Amino acid sequence: MRRVAVLSTGLTKVDKQWRKSIKELYGDAARLAIKDVKIPQIDALIVGNMCASDLSDQNNIGALIADYIGIAPSTAYRIEAACGSGGAAVLGAYLAVASGMYDFVMTGGVEKLTDGVGGNTTHSLGKAADAEFELFYGSSFVSLNAMLMNHYMHHYHISREDFADFAVLMHKNGSRNPYAQLPFPITRETVINSDMISDPISLYDCAPVGDGAASLILCPLEDAPKYSDSYVEITGIAGATDTINLSSREDLLTLKSTVSAAEKAYKMAKVSPRDIDVAEIHDTFTITGVLSLEDLGFCEKGKFHKTLANGGFEPGGSISINPSGGLKSRGHPVGATGAYQVAEIAMQLTNKADKWQIPDAEIGLAQNIGGSGSSTYVTILRRSR
Amino acid sequence: MRRVAVLSTGLTKVDKQWRKSIKELYGDAARLAIKDVKIPQIDALIVGNMCASDLSDQNNIGALIADYIGIAPSTAYRIEAACGSGGAAVLGAYLAVASGMYDFVMTGGVEKLTDGVGGNTTHSLGKAADAEFELFYGSSFVSLNAMLMNHYMHHYHISREDFADFAVLMHKNGSRNPYAQLPFPITRETVINSDMISDPISLYDCAPVGDGAASLILCPLEDAPKYSDSYVEITGIAGATDTINLSSREDLLTLKSTVSAAEKAYKMAKVSPRDIDVAEIHDTFTITGVLSLEDLGFCEKGKFHKTLANGGFEPGGSISINPSGGLKSRGHPVGATGAYQVAEIAMQLTNKADKWQIPDAEIGLAQNIGGSGSSTYVTILRRSR
Repeated sequence: MRRVAVLSTGLTKVDKQWRKSIKELYGDAARLAIKDVKIPQIDALIVGNMCASDLSDQNNIGALIADYIGIAPSTAYRIEAACGSGGAAVLGAYLAVASGMYDFVMTGGVEKLTDGVGGNTTHSLGKAADAEFELFYGSSFVSLNAMLMNHYMHHYHISREDFADFAVLMHKNGSRNPYAQLPFPITRETVINSDMISDPISLYDCAPVGDGAASLILCPLEDAPKYSDSYVEITGIAGATDTINLSSREDLLTLKSTVSAAEKAYKMAKVSPRDIDVAEIHDTFTITGVLSLEDLGFCEKGKFHKTLANGGFEPGGSISINPSGGLKSRGHPVGATGAYQVAEIAMQLTNKADKWQIPDAEIGLAQNIGGSGSSTYVTILRRSR
Repeated sequence: MRRVAVLSTGLTKVDKQWRKSIKELYGDAARLAIKDVKIPQIDALIVGNMCASDLSDQNNIGALIADYIGIAPSTAYRIEAACGSGGAAVLGAYLAVASGMYDFVMTGGVEKLTDGVGGNTTHSLGKAADAEFELFYGSSFVSLNAMLMNHYMHHYHISREDFADFAVLMHKNGSRNPYAQLPFPITRETVINSDMISDPISLYDCAPVGDGAASLILCPLEDAPKYSDSYVEITGIAGATDTINLSSREDLLTLKSTVSAAEKAYKMAKVSPRDIDVAEIHDTFTITGVLSLEDLGFCEKGKFHKTLANGGFEPGGSISINPSGGLKSRGHPVGATGAYQVAEIAMQLTNKADKWQIPDAEIGLAQNIGGSGSSTYVTILRRSR
């Protein structure tokens, strides 16, 4: 299997991007990704997206974007795994390069959620759940996660305030990130006193809905030095699934797909959770962030608040969690989120994160979840030079 | 790069499958694919689909189906390239096995078009075109192809009757295929006298809309003999794109994506069009079938009617075209069609095609188009034992 590098990345700010269509938004990210690397061609485009058919009247966005950015006749298709689409697209692109069949693969993700021409954003996102067994009975994505948060609070005797502190850290981090949708600090009181969305989840426990695109160029590791003097290697990558319905799970407070994907990715990269310097994790809601921290092995079950209180998750702590601000502050353009995460880790490892740069990171991890944990994609990156 | 085999296949009849949800329909095909091969596990599911979000209120069908067929925690995601989704999924699965990262990958496609819970099938399929430059101005998928057919008739002095003969051959072939949606013979007069849909395309120039699923299991070629005594090798596989808008094309009567994908696949398989014994080509409309024949190199431009008249495309002719009946008679469950085609070629090469078996085929080709030629996937298979 060929070793694979992330050669370059390009991000748009997550925002209400009402002046850009879906192809223009991805085009902006793609232009940034290609501007500093003189590669001979792009052999394939593998792009993550969840909602373009519902909200932009546009399926077939692989070919649409390949045409727009001028890479036809190269291969192009879309990968979708709900909110995990970006992470799944990076995996698909990794396989394309690792196989030896494609040398230069552009991947990433794009999503427009705030000015849909067709459907309703909440309904479109709800389709990540099982239409027949969850949506049909009236549950929404936030109500399913509210149930988990209630159960967690009861089971581990954890307070609303402890969860609020996670959101506070995310906003503190995101306030330094120029690509963040909500780049401002908040206090514990902001979270506690914000509008109730689905008890106990209040507004500031939720990631915002946003538009954005992230683009990455992958190539064989051995060729990377010819085209850039700052690249990273993908040393571990894996996907895993769990039941789509929460009602079928043995243990509601374990994201089995995260446990499985992380186990495979750690093994492939020959590292343990303790070796990870920086991680971008999938905090759709504060409860999702907390379960992710635990199931990736970054803290003990029911004890995240202790590490949070002693600064262990802050930039430069024992493991820097979401220096970008995470889904909570950077934003959550769903099918692009996993691609943002991998790009952000690559930027940290190559010292390109400017005001949100953390010191001396060598190994980083991105974790991207589809649905309520029905799938997870974990990517581990290592600084190369 | 590891060599890759198609180990087994499973198909449902293309039909109005109103009693099956999307996961149940794919589950039927998956059960048939796994029943005769004692493989230790399925490492990943890579499934093609276009319209489930619009018409079944279900995104995230990778995880949905992985859960339903009982393969969690294996990796699972969806690949989409409009009507080319099935062919793109087979390519994605090929890369997964060829890379060395996954040993047993289930791929294929599933589509339910006839009893949508959400949107409108014609509108959903139209999203394969460019929403901003084609759909917006009122063109539909059939009207775009009607323009091509008019242009072709004018340019090459070809009659409606010549096109009708292609549909007649498809129905003659499909009448022997138990999986076909329209398994009955028709006459030239049936086509000419059928209702006008978009001049000059009449009803019997069109592939029907149907529900169906096709499943394939891929594995390393060297391991295939352990699990089956009839498998085939994927010796060539490629995807390519063209402009999404017809208005941007230099030559309306050439499917450049088909030319490019075929060129790459022939080169990889070290064969020429003359070496192909049997092909399943993408005849959404008779005009699409004709352009495909030419751009795959199976006949000269503007002269398909001569080969058709002398029986060269019939079963056992110089090249057997669509012994399944093609999209026209077998049916066109869009995101599954490319998977049907690859499975049908594998069945022909392993003598499993029963009453629609053609004699002594050694090398076969499947060609699957997305949109109005905005992308094409070509897969070449060779009999192994």
